Amino acid sequence: MSNILEHRTWRYATKKFDATKKVSDEDLETLLEATRLSASSYGLQPYHVLVISDQKVKEQLKPASWNQSQITDASHVIVFANATEFGEELVDDFLANVSETRNIPEEGLKGYSDFMKSKLIDLPTETKSNWTARQAYIAFGNLMQAAAELKIDTCPMEGFESDKYNEILGLEGKNLNAAVVLAVGYRSEEDETQHLPKVRKSKEELFTLI
Amino acid sequence: MSNILEHRTWRYATKKFDATKKVSDEDLETLLEATRLSASSYGLQPYHVLVISDQKVKEQLKPASWNQSQITDASHVIVFANATEFGEELVDDFLANVSETRNIPEEGLKGYSDFMKSKLIDLPTETKSNWTARQAYIAFGNLMQAAAELKIDTCPMEGFESDKYNEILGLEGKNLNAAVVLAVGYRSEEDETQHLPKVRKSKEELFTLI
Repeated sequence: MSNILEHRTWRYATKKFDATKKVSDEDLETLLEATRLSASSYGLQPYHVLVISDQKVKEQLKPASWNQSQITDASHVIVFANATEFGEELVDDFLANVSETRNIPEEGLKGYSDFMKSKLIDLPTETKSNWTARQAYIAFGNLMQAAAELKIDTCPMEGFESDKYNEILGLEGKNLNAAVVLAVGYRSEEDETQHLPKVRKSKEELFTLI
Repeated sequence: MSNILEHRTWRYATKKFDATKKVSDEDLETLLEATRLSASSYGLQPYHVLVISDQKVKEQLKPASWNQSQITDASHVIVFANATEFGEELVDDFLANVSETRNIPEEGLKGYSDFMKSKLIDLPTETKSNWTARQAYIAFGNLMQAAAELKIDTCPMEGFESDKYNEILGLEGKNLNAAVVLAVGYRSEEDETQHLPKVRKSKEELFTLI
């Protein structure tokens, strides 16, 4: 089996983490850099990522996470919070970064700025929020995959109360909403689910070749 | 630089593909298997993936894609279509697969079935559709990453008219909507964007460590 499929087969949604094992600073750095490099629409990265290792905060999040033990047993809980609203500053800040990184005068980016703003700024708030969440999911999936490449386990989690997360993590009033969570750490030997065969749609069911 | 960061740095949104280079059957098989192994909420994979190599169909899609040349120059155009509506059959079909794959009698999955249905079936259609699209984005991002591991280029694309895609690809009346597109192939030497430094938010801006 190619390496590409090997780490994708190895990973599974870890139900029980070994609470004694912590992700090293060096590995965490690699995971965050991989996340930072994620693709997003226009490169705008309209989300913020909270990386939680503080045990007290994890204890607070647990009851807001259907009491799932992954939250307190995992080494790190990583929360992807998407922008729920944005204005021209999203585009302006990005283009200031483009200008600096690529050494292009901002005036030369005016046409691109107008184009992006025409596509994005007048969208309804609900549409904006769903769009930013999709971008956050790309980064979230990318982090999950990078972890598997390092043989670090993860549990992707949508089973939590985002309102409570927003309150605990101080996201209220910041136009951010906890969209999806990745618990990151090392599987417990006792987690029986690691031995179960993966359940996936068949190729025939999932794909149409045209 | 670790290998994990190397292929993430190597990839970029390819603006010009070399139309003479095609992804081999073997590599395509690996990419699709990686996609098939993607994580999704509960493992439900509520989407369908269209893999288009037929040049005539690509020509039809191009005007519905802001006339971007990636659509016709790329080796394959891969369309992720999310389920816009679903009923109990989404859960029932999945659990029939769980039962068969893991050799568990379906009766033993009744509690799990009821739980999933209670969470999903009564959601408003709009919420369902946004949720299935997020799952599709995980698979889409996973495919983009797997391609980079094989040094195959991609261009992630949201700039297309989904209504026209649905019509051309026969998705109408199937509860499927073209959500996001990945053009897959090999970068043209003439694509100047490959030489530009990547623009990303700084670590300080993107992450909060707690």
